Amino acid sequence: MNYSSHFTDSDRLYMAEAIELAQFGRFTTPPNPNVGCIIVKHNQIIATGYHRQAGQPHAEVYALRQAGDRAQGATAYVTLEPCSHFGRTPPCADALINAGITRVVVAMQDPNPNVAGQGIKRLRQAGIQVDVGLLADEAQLINRAFLKRMRTGMPYVQLKLATSLDGKIAMASGESQWITSREARQDVQVFRAQASAILSTRATVQADNASLTVRHHELPPNIQQIYPIESVRKPVRVILDSQNQLTGDENLFQQSGKIWLVRKQNIEFNQQNTTVLIESSASKHIDLYLLLKQLALQQINSVWVEAGSHLAGALLEQNLVDELIIYYAPKLLGHNALDLCFLPHLHQLALVPEFEFQSVQMVGPDLRCILTKKSL
Amino acid sequence: MNYSSHFTDSDRLYMAEAIELAQFGRFTTPPNPNVGCIIVKHNQIIATGYHRQAGQPHAEVYALRQAGDRAQGATAYVTLEPCSHFGRTPPCADALINAGITRVVVAMQDPNPNVAGQGIKRLRQAGIQVDVGLLADEAQLINRAFLKRMRTGMPYVQLKLATSLDGKIAMASGESQWITSREARQDVQVFRAQASAILSTRATVQADNASLTVRHHELPPNIQQIYPIESVRKPVRVILDSQNQLTGDENLFQQSGKIWLVRKQNIEFNQQNTTVLIESSASKHIDLYLLLKQLALQQINSVWVEAGSHLAGALLEQNLVDELIIYYAPKLLGHNALDLCFLPHLHQLALVPEFEFQSVQMVGPDLRCILTKKSL
Repeated sequence: MNYSSHFTDSDRLYMAEAIELAQFGRFTTPPNPNVGCIIVKHNQIIATGYHRQAGQPHAEVYALRQAGDRAQGATAYVTLEPCSHFGRTPPCADALINAGITRVVVAMQDPNPNVAGQGIKRLRQAGIQVDVGLLADEAQLINRAFLKRMRTGMPYVQLKLATSLDGKIAMASGESQWITSREARQDVQVFRAQASAILSTRATVQADNASLTVRHHELPPNIQQIYPIESVRKPVRVILDSQNQLTGDENLFQQSGKIWLVRKQNIEFNQQNTTVLIESSASKHIDLYLLLKQLALQQINSVWVEAGSHLAGALLEQNLVDELIIYYAPKLLGHNALDLCFLPHLHQLALVPEFEFQSVQMVGPDLRCILTKKSL
Repeated sequence: MNYSSHFTDSDRLYMAEAIELAQFGRFTTPPNPNVGCIIVKHNQIIATGYHRQAGQPHAEVYALRQAGDRAQGATAYVTLEPCSHFGRTPPCADALINAGITRVVVAMQDPNPNVAGQGIKRLRQAGIQVDVGLLADEAQLINRAFLKRMRTGMPYVQLKLATSLDGKIAMASGESQWITSREARQDVQVFRAQASAILSTRATVQADNASLTVRHHELPPNIQQIYPIESVRKPVRVILDSQNQLTGDENLFQQSGKIWLVRKQNIEFNQQNTTVLIESSASKHIDLYLLLKQLALQQINSVWVEAGSHLAGALLEQNLVDELIIYYAPKLLGHNALDLCFLPHLHQLALVPEFEFQSVQMVGPDLRCILTKKSL
């Protein structure tokens, strides 16, 4: 459906601003979506708001509070359909109606089954003009993880890879320190900080002595400024340990923040911050599809995967990766070095996992490529 | 030495334009350098010229012809020191003097031992103000191949690689068609067309039935327009065939354009367009260093390498590659697939070949990265 005829250039500018605003919440809103709201009267922005954190007011409420009585007769631009249900906060649709807003421009409908058009309907029933679909693609993009979970019951999976130009991650000897740069490793922190969960394996935890935490002091200064250390969430660390090999003494467990240890069978494991999840399918491996499904049920919107070639390969072979983030160090390690992706079942070129480049950017001396699953 | 204090913003603009102009010659000037010249009088460009082809007039002569009597008292901007010797054409320094030019701005001195400061000296002796060093880095860049040959007696080596995201060039079965896109393969034509020589191997010629020619109709329309089919050079195709396995019946030999077949021993080979070069070092392999040295002696400025992982690896291990051009197709082929670079002697991370990203650009669905040898 093409709604574009409804909208003026000013509409577009205001919605673009609301989307910009929504993104301020990207480190703190999960499991909620990012939402921005701008209230405009007589072609002037009179109030703005964005959703900061689950349990705190929605974007519309922030903006309406700021607008006060001036909201009478104004237009509200909202990046996601206003909610119509009582969740942790009262319905925003009602707040907009009560404030006397006369037009609401909505970038996209909320696929959350609790909303799903009910918010728009409620506004219209109250006599408000509601125009839907402005900058819908951009609005989808900022909530791609939330939206995937709502639509499919699966989290959005981002697979991080760090490699030489020729797709190698370590020398044959295992020597691998510093393939990519300090800058690339800092950049990873920004992605970790936005994820709902970080997925890794026993092998990575042991080999790299990885803590898999968000190190606030390694975030770029502009992000540190917006998000003081106490308000950045700690993504839950989900660690595959099908052979029960982790002891609890590893560095990972010494760092604060929740850990979900995924095992095939329950044995005693005492660490205050750790919950053991049992994945008891018949296979000796952990069933990644079932695990991800389970994570979505726990309101995990997005999973940031940092692991070795085996987990990367298994996720790819099962078509579970939505996004690749690849850091290329400008080096060549040669054919003897260790491979980036272990894809044992792949024998035909026609069946290889295909992606599309979305963005490419230098990060220090390295190149960061972001790709998404090829659309069919 | 920092000359920049001599120069005004106008000087910089005129020189930038001269460099732009010089690049029009990039498909046709080898073995000569690319040179542009702009003549300015009373802050107006009165004439322009660039060098088109060895044997044809130099940039200065084109511009002076266009300027005619108006050159009296004018300033000439030249991207490379005007020559002082009789080559295929008379010295440009004399032409500038005779035309009454009163100031010459030169981006950089010519390292050609026949010039090497003599042109500048000759102009100064005639009372002309000569300012040297404006936009020298940019001027070096457009002649990096010519300059390398002049300074080191070796050609500038560009290694082209086409790979999946994980550094693979074919499935284990050898299946490899269309790893990169049609657009990427067309882009390769533009590089071939600028090279002095194309270096490949018997294996590539046989496996891909490669002709390794410049296909004029695959060049972008804007380049086709500037360079009608008859004026684009045909880079010499240098093919390694140490085991004397090529018969002359291959597609390569049926396409017009010179071929230099590099062998370890001379046996009868009858193809009109083919010269056999004998590299008779003790090794059973062809000594790549000696071969490149030999090519430079034959006035080959730049070598564009299109071959498999073995030649790529050998050049890299011997530190003979100046520039990498890598096309990444957005696919993952997995660990069983065939590797991009065969580097059998590399066992330590500290010794891996390192490069620096210079440019990154989408070419159709693929990503093209250009990297140069890391400066020490």
